[in-house]
Amino acid sequence: MERTEIADYGEFGLIRHLTKNIELQNVSSILGVGDDAAVIDHYGKQTVVTTDLLIEGVHFDLMYTPLKHLGYKSVVVNISDIFAMNAQPTQITLSLGISNRFPVEALEEFYEGVYAACDTYGVDLVGGDTASSQKGFIISITAIGEVAADKLVKRSGAKKGDLLCCSGALGAPYLGLLFLEREKKIYLENPNIQPDLEGEDYVIGRLLKPEARQDIIQFFEQGGILPTAMMDISDGLSSEILHICESSSVGAVLYEEKIPIMEETRKAAYKFELDPTACALSGGEEYELLFTVDQKDYDQLLQYDQITVIGYMTDAAEGARIITKGGNTHPITAQGWNAFKK
Amino acid sequence: MERTEIADYGEFGLIRHLTKNIELQNVSSILGVGDDAAVIDHYGKQTVVTTDLLIEGVHFDLMYTPLKHLGYKSVVVNISDIFAMNAQPTQITLSLGISNRFPVEALEEFYEGVYAACDTYGVDLVGGDTASSQKGFIISITAIGEVAADKLVKRSGAKKGDLLCCSGALGAPYLGLLFLEREKKIYLENPNIQPDLEGEDYVIGRLLKPEARQDIIQFFEQGGILPTAMMDISDGLSSEILHICESSSVGAVLYEEKIPIMEETRKAAYKFELDPTACALSGGEEYELLFTVDQKDYDQLLQYDQITVIGYMTDAAEGARIITKGGNTHPITAQGWNAFKK
Repeated sequence: MERTEIADYGEFGLIRHLTKNIELQNVSSILGVGDDAAVIDHYGKQTVVTTDLLIEGVHFDLMYTPLKHLGYKSVVVNISDIFAMNAQPTQITLSLGISNRFPVEALEEFYEGVYAACDTYGVDLVGGDTASSQKGFIISITAIGEVAADKLVKRSGAKKGDLLCCSGALGAPYLGLLFLEREKKIYLENPNIQPDLEGEDYVIGRLLKPEARQDIIQFFEQGGILPTAMMDISDGLSSEILHICESSSVGAVLYEEKIPIMEETRKAAYKFELDPTACALSGGEEYELLFTVDQKDYDQLLQYDQITVIGYMTDAAEGARIITKGGNTHPITAQGWNAFKK
Repeated sequence: MERTEIADYGEFGLIRHLTKNIELQNVSSILGVGDDAAVIDHYGKQTVVTTDLLIEGVHFDLMYTPLKHLGYKSVVVNISDIFAMNAQPTQITLSLGISNRFPVEALEEFYEGVYAACDTYGVDLVGGDTASSQKGFIISITAIGEVAADKLVKRSGAKKGDLLCCSGALGAPYLGLLFLEREKKIYLENPNIQPDLEGEDYVIGRLLKPEARQDIIQFFEQGGILPTAMMDISDGLSSEILHICESSSVGAVLYEEKIPIMEETRKAAYKFELDPTACALSGGEEYELLFTVDQKDYDQLLQYDQITVIGYMTDAAEGARIITKGGNTHPITAQGWNAFKK
C-alpha cells in the first residue's frame, strides 16, 4: 500500500487535499472549509448544535475498526443527536488529532467514511481543524441542524400516560464489541489464528456501522406526530429512560417482553452466557431513538414496523420500573458508561 | 489542596457539576447544556461556526500554563475566528478529554477560565461532551456567532490598492513561549532554581492570556467601516498575508518599519539574539486581526490607535513582498506552523 507522509502536505495542504472534492448540498451552507469560520443561513428556523469527542483507545480500537467505518460512525453518532431533537442535520465540522504514525492514505479512508455519511444524511462538511497529536487518533465533530421552533422535541416534555417507544432493535452493538474483543485477545496471544467472526455480521455491523434514524423523523413529519420527549440511545436503554424521567419529572413502566431484540442478538448473547435483556438495557451505542408520544397517536405508530411501544409514563413518585417476563417489578438502574471508575 | 476524584461524580454528574451555574446571556440561546443538542435562534442573521482542537504537549504545556488561563485562552482562540468574519460570537460548545490524573478541582479551575472568557465576550456555553482520555488533556471548542449577511467579511475580498492593516502589536507570544521553555528546561535540570521571568510579564501575558479583538469589530461597526478581507493572526503575519493574497487573488507590499512591535518585545527578542521583525512575521498565536480596507477609509482608521496600516495590496502578479527598513525587497514566505515536519 502507498504511504504518503502527512509532512509532505503540511497542515493547510492536508486540509485542502482532504476537502477538495466537497460540494455543498444545503442552501443554508453559505461558506464552507477555507476561511476562519463557516457561515450558515437558517432564516426562520432554530439552529441545533451538538458535539462529540472520540478518542482512540477509549471510544474505538483501530485494531478492529476500519478507518472508513470509523469516519462514517463519527458522523452518525453526532447527527443522531440532531434527530433526537426532531431536527434535520445540515452541517458538520470535523477536527482531527493525528500522529504521524498515520499516512495520508489512512486519513483519506477516514474521510471517505465521513463523506459517505454526509451523503447518506444530506449534510455538509463546512469546517474543522487538523492538529498533530503525540499519540492516538482524536476525533471531534460538531453537528448543526435546523428545526421549526414548534417542532423542537426536548427530553423534558413527557407526560403521565404517554407511550414509551423506541426505534429498531436493541442489544446488538455491545455483543459485537464482545466478539471483537475476544478475537483481538486470541490474536494477540497467537497471531497465526484467524479471527472467527462467522455468522456474527449482524451484531458486529451494528457496532461498526450504525445508522441514525432519519426515517423515524420523516415518519413523524409525514404523519403529523410530535413526540413529547425524545433522545437517542447512546448509553443504554435504562440510562436514557432515567434521563427522560428526570428531565420530564415523570416515572416510567417498561415491559421486558416488549423490548425489541433480534434473534441474532439473542443467539450472540447466549454464546457469552449473557441475558439478552441486560444487553439491551445497558449495552448502549445503539443510536436508536427513544421517545414518548401521546396515546392519541397510538394507531398511527402501529403503521411503521420500525417503532415499538415498550411501556408508558407514570407519576414521578412511582419511579422508573421494569416489569419482567415473569411478572416481577424492579426499579430501573443505570449500569451505563462510567469510564472514570477505576 | 482538596482532591475530588472524577469517578466520584461520573460523567453526567461531572458535567452537571461543572455547568450548574450557567446563566444564558444571549436571547438567541434557546436551550443550553443538558439535552442531546443545544438550540439557537438566529432569525434573520447568518450563523458563523468555527472549531479548534487543542492537545496537551502539542498546543500547550501544563507545566507552565495555569488551567484557568488555558480555559480562558481556549475560548479566546475560537471567538477570535468569529470576530475575523466580522461576526459577533454568541455561543460555544466545549468538549474535554481528561485522564483521571486530574482531580475535579483542576477541571473547576479550567472552567473558571472558560466562564471568565464567556463573560468578557458575552457568549453562552451551550453544550459539550466530557470523555476520558488515556493520556493528556484534550480541548475541543466550537464557537458560533451571528452576522448580518451584508456585513460578513471573508478572506477573499481584498482588492488591488486596498490598505493592509493589523490590530495591536505583534511578536510577543513567541518570545513568551521561549522564556517559559527556557525556565522549564532549567527547572527540569535543577528543581531548586526558581524561575526567573522578572520583567517579562508583557510577552508571557501575551502568550498565556491573549484577548480577542472585539473592540476592533465594534470600531468598524460604529464607524461604518467594512473591511474587504479579514482573518486573525494565529500562524504568523507572513502566513496570514499569504492566505489573504491567495484567497483574494492579489499581491501585497508589507513595510517592515510599519509592523507594530512593543519595546518589551524588542528587548525580549534581543535577549534571545532574535530579530523582532522575524518574531512578528513567523511567531503566531497573536489573535490580532489582519484586514484590508478601501483607501477611502484611511482617515477614519487613523482615529483608533489600536489599528496600524502596514502595507497595501497589489496585483497578484507582483506577489507578496516585504520592504525592509534598509529598503530591500524580499518575497514573504510562510515559516509558520508545521508540526508534522520531523
